Amino acid sequence: MDLLVVGSVALDSVKTPFGQVTEALGGSATYFSYAASFFTSVGVVATVGEDFPSVHLDLLRGRSVDLSGLQVAKGETFRWVGEYGYDLNEARTLATHLNVFADFKPQLPDQLKTPSLLFLANIDPELQRAVLRQVERPRLVALDTMNFWIDGKRQALLEVVGEVDALVVNDREARQLAQEANLIKAALTLHSYGPRTVVIKRGEYGALMVNSGRFFFTPAYPLESVFDPTGAGDTFAGGFMGYLARQGRFDEPTLRRAIVYGSVMASFTVEDFSLERLKRLKESEIGARFDSFQELVNFEGRA
Amino acid sequence: MDLLVVGSVALDSVKTPFGQVTEALGGSATYFSYAASFFTSVGVVATVGEDFPSVHLDLLRGRSVDLSGLQVAKGETFRWVGEYGYDLNEARTLATHLNVFADFKPQLPDQLKTPSLLFLANIDPELQRAVLRQVERPRLVALDTMNFWIDGKRQALLEVVGEVDALVVNDREARQLAQEANLIKAALTLHSYGPRTVVIKRGEYGALMVNSGRFFFTPAYPLESVFDPTGAGDTFAGGFMGYLARQGRFDEPTLRRAIVYGSVMASFTVEDFSLERLKRLKESEIGARFDSFQELVNFEGRA
Repeated sequence: MDLLVVGSVALDSVKTPFGQVTEALGGSATYFSYAASFFTSVGVVATVGEDFPSVHLDLLRGRSVDLSGLQVAKGETFRWVGEYGYDLNEARTLATHLNVFADFKPQLPDQLKTPSLLFLANIDPELQRAVLRQVERPRLVALDTMNFWIDGKRQALLEVVGEVDALVVNDREARQLAQEANLIKAALTLHSYGPRTVVIKRGEYGALMVNSGRFFFTPAYPLESVFDPTGAGDTFAGGFMGYLARQGRFDEPTLRRAIVYGSVMASFTVEDFSLERLKRLKESEIGARFDSFQELVNFEGRA
Repeated sequence: MDLLVVGSVALDSVKTPFGQVTEALGGSATYFSYAASFFTSVGVVATVGEDFPSVHLDLLRGRSVDLSGLQVAKGETFRWVGEYGYDLNEARTLATHLNVFADFKPQLPDQLKTPSLLFLANIDPELQRAVLRQVERPRLVALDTMNFWIDGKRQALLEVVGEVDALVVNDREARQLAQEANLIKAALTLHSYGPRTVVIKRGEYGALMVNSGRFFFTPAYPLESVFDPTGAGDTFAGGFMGYLARQGRFDEPTLRRAIVYGSVMASFTVEDFSLERLKRLKESEIGARFDSFQELVNFEGRA
């Protein structure tokens, strides 16, 4: 197993100014693994209820995602209901039904205990630490989190952040976790908490990385219509980690290309609801959009 | 004269979370011309009152700025009072005393009527057109505006926008003028109004350009402390136009480097109040920061 993700598999009901879906496939581990599958072999540790439609499992299996770590628990699948206004940068949560996810205790089957790379998606930081105790030291561990844990379990979160190689959060989470309004200072503060690499996702403003003290910026791909931003951050992480797993090294040029591949994958996800755009995605489109990113930001040096 | 700017010279009182100044030198033509003077010869058409401190004129003359188009009118100089919260992206205007600026009728002395490049800073669009009637067709004309004119004189503004080569506005102005929330669509809509080049300033998120349909993005320089964003947009325009004037051509690679030089100059302005940082600025710092921008965004192509 090259890459393992521990996170959520969910059914999302989402409304945007451009349409809506009901109980569509969602969840951090879903978006992450589907995006990463274009680059590397990937396994999922998560939980769903007995009501989870098998068609969704078939979809992931169709991408060769290893689902041996997916627990099917008594009860209903995690459901999220949210909506976006014309400012698509922030979702308004209307309902969160944790259901079986409330009792999720990640248990890694033996064959998933030696991943080369590990992504700890947004779950309770104590569970993130418990997962770290179950794996043999992977070559790179990255972690995401959210405001709920920053508020409620700050100390546990800081402890696990101190144990990982890379932190992948959005700009609001970065500011909140660092307790610092200036995003550049916030990035450096998070860097000082331990992770060698800090990646900050900024929605329509792209992403930035601090790696061993050096900054890298990339814009978001210019899209004339963003349909639904749900899953963009997890898709970004899947492209980022998937590319790193494929390359098997973490030097600055590789990390920079990984950030761009993450941005590429996220730019597809937001073009439609749920995983619809990713389901139609061709390998050749990924390369073409990567090249477009380079065209977007390149300029010649001083004469 | 390589570059001419028509705009305001003002006395600004500004409060930010990091300090305050009272009746400091400000105004669009001031920031613009001071920044541009690092690249080319620049002249100013503006008006001040009889109370305007001569020390400020000496400062501009010290940069060889041509002030033969600066009218000293009976009355008091334009004054602006504003403040910023921790979100430094938007100023709150506390008071605007137009004073002599209310009756400003730009009159170009003969020696300023043949500029190679012309920048119409944010003034009444009817005055912007009147200036266009006074110059022999320059090689490139760029224009800035603000919400007040977009609301109040939309038709006159659209007419003058249709006559210029480049539009340089911030993101809110772009959305408002294009009547379009999606910034990419807004940029293309503004492009369709006539200007071959549309530059959109995004504060801490950098800048984007659409030139003949092609997009270019640059981040803002990562600063750990932004002291006062007043004048950043006009400084950006000064660096942008100053570099273009020096190079004397407007092809895509030159325009891209000009955007970066604009960003470089703006990144210095925000490091202190008024023109304080620009006053201390050395030529070598400009080149070094330009190189840093390249380092910030560069990544290698697909293997």
